Amino acid sequence: MTTAFIALDWGTTSLRAWRIDEHGALLERRAGGPGIMKVADGAFAAALTDFCGDWLAAAPGARVIASGMIGSKQGWVEAPYCPCPAGAADLAARMAHAPLADGRRLAITPGVSTVDPATGLPDVMRGEETQVFGALPRAGQHLAILPGTHSKWARVADGRIESFATYMTGEMYGALVSHTILGRQIDAAAPHNAAAFERGARLGLSEPQALLARLFSPRTLGLFGQLAPAAAASYLSGLLIGSEVGHALAGTADNVAPVLLGDPQLSLRYATVLGLAGVAATLGDAEVAATGLYRLSGMGSGTADP
Amino acid sequence: MTTAFIALDWGTTSLRAWRIDEHGALLERRAGGPGIMKVADGAFAAALTDFCGDWLAAAPGARVIASGMIGSKQGWVEAPYCPCPAGAADLAARMAHAPLADGRRLAITPGVSTVDPATGLPDVMRGEETQVFGALPRAGQHLAILPGTHSKWARVADGRIESFATYMTGEMYGALVSHTILGRQIDAAAPHNAAAFERGARLGLSEPQALLARLFSPRTLGLFGQLAPAAAASYLSGLLIGSEVGHALAGTADNVAPVLLGDPQLSLRYATVLGLAGVAATLGDAEVAATGLYRLSGMGSGTADP
Repeated sequence: MTTAFIALDWGTTSLRAWRIDEHGALLERRAGGPGIMKVADGAFAAALTDFCGDWLAAAPGARVIASGMIGSKQGWVEAPYCPCPAGAADLAARMAHAPLADGRRLAITPGVSTVDPATGLPDVMRGEETQVFGALPRAGQHLAILPGTHSKWARVADGRIESFATYMTGEMYGALVSHTILGRQIDAAAPHNAAAFERGARLGLSEPQALLARLFSPRTLGLFGQLAPAAAASYLSGLLIGSEVGHALAGTADNVAPVLLGDPQLSLRYATVLGLAGVAATLGDAEVAATGLYRLSGMGSGTADP
Repeated sequence: MTTAFIALDWGTTSLRAWRIDEHGALLERRAGGPGIMKVADGAFAAALTDFCGDWLAAAPGARVIASGMIGSKQGWVEAPYCPCPAGAADLAARMAHAPLADGRRLAITPGVSTVDPATGLPDVMRGEETQVFGALPRAGQHLAILPGTHSKWARVADGRIESFATYMTGEMYGALVSHTILGRQIDAAAPHNAAAFERGARLGLSEPQALLARLFSPRTLGLFGQLAPAAAASYLSGLLIGSEVGHALAGTADNVAPVLLGDPQLSLRYATVLGLAGVAATLGDAEVAATGLYRLSGMGSGTADP
């Protein structure tokens, strides 16, 4: 089949690529390329050629489109944030462009920004919007949860991201395990312990406002022999995800079933916590970024890739 | 004046000492000794002789008493936690003892433990109890706040610690600044910015349950030019202390005015946040540990230092 699009998910720490035909079908996937932090001196064009120069050479007529931190200030060409509500057409109309070695231009998807009406605080995503557009149908009300270093909870209505919120959950977990006293009593390499995870999750769900206090409990439970080092990582993970979910659900007045988009193991943990709170979630497709980029590319044909 | 007591505050990272006369008056103070982490191979007796061997030699009849992590599993001799409610006499009756080079014994104060009746979670302090006994009168209801790496909120009734809670606030601040993406936009060496501190504090006070989400705001405010790197450390400090105070005050049904015991600059920050919440706090004396150790020593004459 002919390659019509080459889609890139180019983030801080990794680069993935997909070949897609004119009907949106995936032809090939490739992972393991360098994230923007690993590309020295702005040599993004050369990094791209190294990673998928064969694809580019074999499909001289294909569009090339990227999303993720490649469009940030630290990336190749900055694609400023598109404010909410933001649909695929809104983003396609605001693509930035970077010159490729063969004369084509790489279209770079903007991130999305929002402002919390209650606090006036801004929030941003860059890369996750592509997963949202790839995973969700264009009609109806949806709630997408994208677990990760910085988890996102995005409300989507008729194909547009209406609002979203970021939680520092994943990065907080890493900092607590590696750089606080809690790490001394945590065997971070131990396998997942479902009972300890649920114990922490129930605590977080029931009282997210107590997080700063509850975070001391892996230590004190360990001191009194009530939490084994092999179970402590799962307990802490549950406590943090529970606190995130507890707060996020409190702002959810409707009955929209959330869709989880992200790493399958982590998504399962979120589904477990949501289940403890009585909310049934579905797991999305891991390849949604490619589908999202295809949709962005297809919708913005006049503007996105002239 | 004759030295009747030598009091030691021997923590994880530092060792301080005081000479005290028979009436409890401070004769001399000394700081800068090695914390237990800096004493290799359990050579605590030699470390103590290095630090205040002159005092010990000049006062062969003086009692010597210590509190802090020196009584932990990682310390010299373990002094197990004394459960709440715990008064000075309870602690004095449970002193551990370590032999000094000159034949005397060092009395080591136990820490204090409690169990949260709502969650069943244990909590511990070790060293702070001495400050509480030093600062507070023996009669009446009191609320002591000890800001720091692990902040403590202790309820005291008629000279006994009834219950307390620990918040990871100080250690969390350090981990966030040094080991997360927030650090990129924070000038941690900038002077205190009172307006940014108050801005963060109001946010934390009003919605402690949103902490995991609000922690992303130093980054997003920075991205949109709404928070300067020189103000971001104060903002984050306010957000964390505000979240601590917001949660802790919600569990405070009475009108007991809190007493702040700890580093004066940090105590002032807590007083500011408490003031934003309409609570007037008083600042305690920085030398309360010595007074507390004197009280512990004096009350337990039969048992504490036989």
